Amino acid sequence: MNRAQIFDTSDTIVALATPPGVGAIGVVRLSGVKAFDLAGSVVRKKNFRELPSHTVHFASIYDGNRRLDEAVFTIFKGPRSFTCEDVVEISVHGSPYILEELIQLLLRQGARLARPGEFTFRAFINGRFDLSQAEAVADLIAADNEHAHRVAMNQMRGGFTQEIARLRTQLVDFASLLELELDFSEEDVEFANRKELIALLEQLIAVIGHLQASFRLGNVMKNGVSTVIAGRPNAGKSTLLNALLNEEKAIVSHIPGTTRDVIEDVVLLDGVKFRFFDTAGIREAEDQIEAIGVERTLAKMEQAAIILYLFDLQQTSPSDLKAELSLMKKHNAEVMLVGNKMDAVSTSDLEAYANFENLYFISAKEAIGLKELQKELLNRVFAGQLQDETVVANARHVEALSKANLALEAAVAAFGNQLSTDLVAQEIRSALHYLGEITGEVTTDDLLGNIFSKFCIGK
Amino acid sequence: MNRAQIFDTSDTIVALATPPGVGAIGVVRLSGVKAFDLAGSVVRKKNFRELPSHTVHFASIYDGNRRLDEAVFTIFKGPRSFTCEDVVEISVHGSPYILEELIQLLLRQGARLARPGEFTFRAFINGRFDLSQAEAVADLIAADNEHAHRVAMNQMRGGFTQEIARLRTQLVDFASLLELELDFSEEDVEFANRKELIALLEQLIAVIGHLQASFRLGNVMKNGVSTVIAGRPNAGKSTLLNALLNEEKAIVSHIPGTTRDVIEDVVLLDGVKFRFFDTAGIREAEDQIEAIGVERTLAKMEQAAIILYLFDLQQTSPSDLKAELSLMKKHNAEVMLVGNKMDAVSTSDLEAYANFENLYFISAKEAIGLKELQKELLNRVFAGQLQDETVVANARHVEALSKANLALEAAVAAFGNQLSTDLVAQEIRSALHYLGEITGEVTTDDLLGNIFSKFCIGK
Repeated sequence: MNRAQIFDTSDTIVALATPPGVGAIGVVRLSGVKAFDLAGSVVRKKNFRELPSHTVHFASIYDGNRRLDEAVFTIFKGPRSFTCEDVVEISVHGSPYILEELIQLLLRQGARLARPGEFTFRAFINGRFDLSQAEAVADLIAADNEHAHRVAMNQMRGGFTQEIARLRTQLVDFASLLELELDFSEEDVEFANRKELIALLEQLIAVIGHLQASFRLGNVMKNGVSTVIAGRPNAGKSTLLNALLNEEKAIVSHIPGTTRDVIEDVVLLDGVKFRFFDTAGIREAEDQIEAIGVERTLAKMEQAAIILYLFDLQQTSPSDLKAELSLMKKHNAEVMLVGNKMDAVSTSDLEAYANFENLYFISAKEAIGLKELQKELLNRVFAGQLQDETVVANARHVEALSKANLALEAAVAAFGNQLSTDLVAQEIRSALHYLGEITGEVTTDDLLGNIFSKFCIGK
Repeated sequence: MNRAQIFDTSDTIVALATPPGVGAIGVVRLSGVKAFDLAGSVVRKKNFRELPSHTVHFASIYDGNRRLDEAVFTIFKGPRSFTCEDVVEISVHGSPYILEELIQLLLRQGARLARPGEFTFRAFINGRFDLSQAEAVADLIAADNEHAHRVAMNQMRGGFTQEIARLRTQLVDFASLLELELDFSEEDVEFANRKELIALLEQLIAVIGHLQASFRLGNVMKNGVSTVIAGRPNAGKSTLLNALLNEEKAIVSHIPGTTRDVIEDVVLLDGVKFRFFDTAGIREAEDQIEAIGVERTLAKMEQAAIILYLFDLQQTSPSDLKAELSLMKKHNAEVMLVGNKMDAVSTSDLEAYANFENLYFISAKEAIGLKELQKELLNRVFAGQLQDETVVANARHVEALSKANLALEAAVAAFGNQLSTDLVAQEIRSALHYLGEITGEVTTDDLLGNIFSKFCIGK
C-alpha cells in the first residue's frame, strides 16, 4: 500500500461500496471535504451543500451531455457519518458498466480512488472508534457463522477494550507520578501510592490473564476448530468424516491407504465452525506418495486443537489402544478416543475399555453415537467458558496483551525485589505502550498500514 | 415462476438489492403496505411510519435480544419510491452472513421473498412506467458498453414508446368511431373521417417502418455485431483476428486447416461490441473433423451481419476473387473484401482489384490498414443512421411492431379495395392490440410472466 496516500486525509476518496457484479443496485461512496461538490458536479441543479444531512435525493447523473443513470444520492454531513467527514452515497442501477463509468467520472472531477480500508481508517483517525473496533469491522464482514459474528459484533461495539482503556488511563496517572518522582529523585519523595499502584497492576494482570485465556475460544469462533481425525488404516476415518458432513466428500473405501492427501472440510455444529481433517492412516507407508500423506497427518496433528483418535473395536485391544494413546498425547491437542464399529462387537467387549477417559463408542457406518460425539466436540470448545462473555479473537490483540502482562508482572516483581523506581517506571511504560497498541492510542505507520491493507476497497 | 405470487401485490416483499458476495455494504429492500412495520419490527424505539419520506436513520437491528448489525434505514413513502409503494432500504455491513440473517428475520416477521423482477413489476403495475420502460431496466443493468447503455437509457426514459402511445391513442379514437358505425350499420353513416383515418394509418406505418429499420442497429448495439472472418485456408484469418483482438486468442499457424472450430471473440471498437468469428477455411475438407468445421462456417455466415472475406493477394487473382465473391453474396450479410499480405505485393498488383467495391487492403501480420478496416466496420454499423436517434433494440418490440404494421397495411389496403368497415375495424383492432403489447396497455399473464422472470431477484 502507498502509505503517503492513505495517511493523506485532505483528499476526497471514492470507491464502490457494494460487492462487484450485477445486481438491482450498486452504491458508490464519496468521503472528504469535497464530497458534496464532487457529487454536485455530476448532476444538474442540485447543491448538496445546501441540503440537510440524512436526506436522499433523486437526480440524473450526467457526464457532460450524456445521461449516465438515474440515481439516489444520500447526504451525510460530517461528523454524522461513517467516516465523520462529509459523505455522499450514490445508489445507481447495479450495472458494472455504469458503476465503473461513474467512478471514472468522479475521478476525473477530482476524487481519488480509495485505498483498501481507507473509509474505516478515516473513521478511526477522526475518533469514531478505536483501532480494535476498526479491526472488528473487517471481522464482522468476514464472519460466516453465528459465533464469529457475535465475537466481531461485540468487539465492534467496544468489547473488552473499554475496560482496558479505563485501566490504562489509571495506569497513565500512576506512571506520571512515578516520572515525577524520578524528576525529584534526589529528594527521595513518593508521589505514587505504592499499595494502590500494586493493586492496580494486579487488577490489570488478572483482567488481561482472563482475556488471554479467552483467545483459544475466540480464535476457534473466528477461524474454526482445527480437528484431526486420526487412526490406523481402515479404522473408518473417511466414513466418520462423511457421516459428520452428511455428504460424500471424502473418498471412502475399504482398502487401507486410500486416503493419501489431507482432506479438509468445514461443518457448522450448533453454529461453531469445525475444520475436519481426514488424514492418511498412520502405519508404515507402502509407497512414496502414501508416505507423504503420513507426514502431512503428523504435521496437521501438531496444529490441531482436537484429535479424534479413531480405532476399530474389532482390531484394537485395550493394551494396543494404551500404547497408541501415549503416542497421541505427544501433541498439544486434546485427544478424544473414538471406538468405531460398535455395532460389530458385544457389550461385554466394550466394557474392556472402561478405564480410558474421554472415550466414545460409535458406528460411523450405522450413524450410531454421532450426535453424542458432536455434543462432546462442542463441550470441548466451550469447556469452562460462557458463550456470551467477552472473548479476544484477534491474534494481534492477544500478542499485545501477552507483552503487556509480561511487563506488568515484571513491574510487580520489581516492587517485591525493592528495585529502583526507574526500572518499575520502565516496565509500566512498556505495558502502557502495548495496551495502547490494541486501542490505537499508540500507533505506528507500519501497524496501521498492516491493519488497513487487509480490508477491501470501499470499506 | 409462480404467477399467483408475482401478481399478488398485497404482500410486502423483501430481497437483497446489491450483488451477492462480500463488500463494504449490502442493501436489503422492502416494498409494500407493511414495509415500515416490518422494518420497525427489527429495531427498537423507531416508528418508521412517523418519519418523513426520503430520510435516513441509523439503528441497530435486533433479532430478539441478539444484535445483528448497525444499519442505515432509508425511508421512501409511496408513491415517491421506485415501486410507488412504501419502501425501506436497509444498508448493513456487506457480509453475506448478516444479509442472509436479516432477510430470514424479515421473512419470519411476515415479509415474502420477492420473485425475480417483482419490484420492477410493481413499479409497472402502479403506473410508474410502461412495459417497455420496465424491460429497459433489465437492459440497462445488462448493458456492458457505451452504445447498449445509451439504447437502454433512452428506452427507459420513454424512448420511441411515447410517440407510439400518442399515435395509438388517436387510432383508438378512430376505432371507437368505426365501432359506432358498425353498431349503426343499417343506417349507413360514417362517423370516422376516412381521409384523416388513412392519413393517421399512413403516418403510423411510416413511424413503425422507421423503427423496424432501426432494429438492426439497436440489436447490434445490444447484442454485438456478428462478424464472420471467412476465406480460403491460409489467407490469414486467425492472424487478422489476433491483430484485431490485439492478443493471441486464436491458434495461428501456417498449416491450412488449423482452425477447425469456430472461435468467437468479443472486442469493443469505439464502444461498439463486435463478435468476431474466426472460421475453418473453406475448401474440400481433408478429414472428418475439418469437414464439420467448414459446415459450421457456412452456418455462421448465414447468421452474420458482416462477412469479412479475407483473401491472400499473392494467391488470389481478380477473376478468382470475382467467383468467390459471388458465392459470398448468397448470404444476407454485408460482404467486405479484404486483401491480405499487401506488404508482399507491388502497388501495381493492387491496382488489378480496382473494379471491386468494398475492397480493403491490409497486412494482418504487419498491422497495416487495420485502423482503416476498423473504421469501415463501424461505418457499416452506423450506415445511414445517426447514433443518437431512437432505436428499437428489443426483439419482442420489433416483432409486435411488424405485426402491427401488417395489420395497418391491411387496413389501408381494405380502404383502397372498398372492403367493408367490419374488415377495416378488425385490422385496426389487431394493430391496436400489438401496439398495446409494447407499452403494456395490453398484457397477458404469460407475457408479463415471461418478461419479469428474466430479471434478477431484487430488481
